[in-house]
Amino acid sequence: MTQDIRTEPAARRPGGRSARVRGAVLDTTLRELAEVGYAALSLEAIAQRAGVNKTTLYRRWGSREGLVLNAMLERGQREVPIPDTGSLRGDLAAYATEIVVASRTPVVEATIRTVASVGDREPRIADASRGFWRTRFEFAGEVVRRAIARGEVPPDTDPNLVVETVVASVYFRLLLSGDELDDGYVDRLAAFVAAGASAAGGAQR
Amino acid sequence: MTQDIRTEPAARRPGGRSARVRGAVLDTTLRELAEVGYAALSLEAIAQRAGVNKTTLYRRWGSREGLVLNAMLERGQREVPIPDTGSLRGDLAAYATEIVVASRTPVVEATIRTVASVGDREPRIADASRGFWRTRFEFAGEVVRRAIARGEVPPDTDPNLVVETVVASVYFRLLLSGDELDDGYVDRLAAFVAAGASAAGGAQR
Repeated sequence: MTQDIRTEPAARRPGGRSARVRGAVLDTTLRELAEVGYAALSLEAIAQRAGVNKTTLYRRWGSREGLVLNAMLERGQREVPIPDTGSLRGDLAAYATEIVVASRTPVVEATIRTVASVGDREPRIADASRGFWRTRFEFAGEVVRRAIARGEVPPDTDPNLVVETVVASVYFRLLLSGDELDDGYVDRLAAFVAAGASAAGGAQR
Repeated sequence: MTQDIRTEPAARRPGGRSARVRGAVLDTTLRELAEVGYAALSLEAIAQRAGVNKTTLYRRWGSREGLVLNAMLERGQREVPIPDTGSLRGDLAAYATEIVVASRTPVVEATIRTVASVGDREPRIADASRGFWRTRFEFAGEVVRRAIARGEVPPDTDPNLVVETVVASVYFRLLLSGDELDDGYVDRLAAFVAAGASAAGGAQR
């Protein structure tokens, strides 16, 4: 089953019939989600529209949640581009804004809430989520690697920690505290984390 | 109904029969949760054990989730003490560790996952959660106010932003990425955020 839980971007998906079926199912899943919402999402409808058997869906994705999450993984990797504003603070603010916007689409919000609610009770979802965030941070770490190259932050700055801190703060407000995710907050957060990155090399020694 | 959603610590709870009933119900809820777990938690059992009518529970707390959350609010405020290690970095690491430990108890984890899963669909829970975190951050901001008094961070450092960034990072790993919440991570996080606080005054100007 593990070959179904992929985190590489769609562009790197290998060809062949199996990959085409997989792509058709995931695209259909997102279209259905957009049309009927998560609560009314039906595996029957997806199977019919994608021209596959419903048992195929269960065999490959295990559950409705697993299917939605896998669809979101690929879509998510495509839809949050890595900004390049010329400063770490600017990049982090732009990236945080993209995440806020993406997380407010009903489909993404439903997926995130589902992941947060299941935890290790659904190992396939937990694994897929771990893989998703690992890939996401690896890509987004580019903004930190560029800041290192510019001499803006120390060479031993941990790209993962910087990006994760920003992403975590956005999702905390979305999922738990419910506090405003407005531009003012995003700017203060980006300035704070960028300042931490500039200073952290020294503080950790 | 709003008078039932309180965020002040138990010690400031006013007296009277209504407050006693409330306290008995919340204590019983936590005892039942510890004994049978969230999935098997029954409002009937809580009502019987606390000596109140089940309709009273529905009237005051709206749902099982609302009741559990309110019970957790008070318990949470009591159970995460504010550390005082002499440095902001040490305090943030100690505070993060307390939150990791608390979040691993089945009752707290179940409550957090429930809150994350419902969002604005359950306004009473969303409101109570907002109030809970506001109070939590207000108390925990003490570690930042002390750091300001020691001259460790600039006077205009935002206590809320500092504490929230640490708390958010812990819950992101718990709820979404599933990455390790070990001592190594907690220390790096605390060092990073403390460095950000030391530097942020300059960076934001």
